[in-house]
Amino acid sequence: MSEKKKTTIVLFSGDYDKAMAAYIIANGAAAYDHEVTIFHTFWGLNALRKENQVPVKKGLMEKMFGKMMPRGTDKMSLSKMNYLGMGQKMIKKVMKKHNAMPLPQLVEMAQEQDVKLIACTMTMDLLGLQKEELLDDIDYGGVAAYVGEAEEGNISLFI
Amino acid sequence: MSEKKKTTIVLFSGDYDKAMAAYIIANGAAAYDHEVTIFHTFWGLNALRKENQVPVKKGLMEKMFGKMMPRGTDKMSLSKMNYLGMGQKMIKKVMKKHNAMPLPQLVEMAQEQDVKLIACTMTMDLLGLQKEELLDDIDYGGVAAYVGEAEEGNISLFI
Amino acid sequence: MSEKKKTTIVLFSGDYDKAMAAYIIANGAAAYDHEVTIFHTFWGLNALRKENQVPVKKGLMEKMFGKMMPRGTDKMSLSKMNYLGMGQKMIKKVMKKHNAMPLPQLVEMAQEQDVKLIACTMTMDLLGLQKEELLDDIDYGGVAAYVGEAEEGNISLFI
Repeated sequence: MSEKKKTTIVLFSGDYDKAMAAYIIANGAAAYDHEVTIFHTFWGLNALRKENQVPVKKGLMEKMFGKMMPRGTDKMSLSKMNYLGMGQKMIKKVMKKHNAMPLPQLVEMAQEQDVKLIACTMTMDLLGLQKEELLDDIDYGGVAAYVGEAEEGNISLFI
Repeated sequence: MSEKKKTTIVLFSGDYDKAMAAYIIANGAAAYDHEVTIFHTFWGLNALRKENQVPVKKGLMEKMFGKMMPRGTDKMSLSKMNYLGMGQKMIKKVMKKHNAMPLPQLVEMAQEQDVKLIACTMTMDLLGLQKEELLDDIDYGGVAAYVGEAEEGNISLFI
Repeated sequence: MSEKKKTTIVLFSGDYDKAMAAYIIANGAAAYDHEVTIFHTFWGLNALRKENQVPVKKGLMEKMFGKMMPRGTDKMSLSKMNYLGMGQKMIKKVMKKHNAMPLPQLVEMAQEQDVKLIACTMTMDLLGLQKEELLDDIDYGGVAAYVGEAEEGNISLFI
């Protein structure tokens, strides 16, 4: 029996288009029977936030970060040609027209395909994000968890 | 006989400097006898556009994307210090002074060294880019083609 | 005796948060006994600049680049939410509050853990940076040095 191939992605970026690329590659690799992990760190953690506000206790600075950062994939903006959100609207429209899957569905699909979604606990601590605010059924870990996953991998990307 | 080493790069970015980095690494790896593939997706697809406008039929949204995005490597701008194009002019000047190869030549060199240039068909579809608008002698493929190339590779990068 | 695992990072970005991510991963991998190399190219070279100005002879364009680019890690700004430097101050404050290591210390720690820091000589040439302006005890090399390090590696990232 041959060993499973492995793909590990660090999602650092909080941009809609970059997160899309990460999840498209993750879903593609999973479809080709890879064991796939996405390690969400820094702004990439926003992809795992629940859309609705969750009441948790926070310090002032953590509250500010919480307010300034997008809540979930649907609120993220483009890395290029954002034009105050217009670019993102256009991309979504054009995606709909061409039957491309929008980001929230790509995340769902990844979960269905057993892609392992890890939230970086160091970033959670820094930005004051708590488990209640993030999607259910995800994993938690630090850089050690990442290195452990990535060092045996075939494809390793930083997005 | 030893197997050839393999380098696979996803070029997602449409920035002049990042595309330069991608093509410098690609040419370097090819010179050291790697089998090299650059998979152009999202804004990175602009690196493969022909400089002159090619008459093709498009919808309105696709026309807008076509107009807003740079046509070919020479029109791309810097990821940092762009200052309305001034930074890019400075970089080009300084590159000329130091005999560094500008991006369009780096792409040519890659083609001469048999670097496989793949255009992401999903992005072409989304942004309404057609084969006639892209460089000749390139390949076309989706995420499956990418995973197939990258999973056997030694170096795999997302730029 | 088993071979050492290897992690190779290209640090292209000059953003504070991205450089932090690079150095956190590098230190983490080194702690797990990887042989780690960070290849600093383009704006990433700024992470290796000494904080104080070093008197060296330069052409006009090189002087301009020298002035416009941040001198050392402490002067870098965030990739997102920079708000004219406010975001970076907030991040530093929140890092202090949570006892996270700021970037200059992460670089020191990397040097103590024998992470190999390479400055890209092609970029030094282009931007007019000279050895005297960069940290002591680093290595110098071009794309060949990078490919040589990365092709035998387990984890390879472009940040």
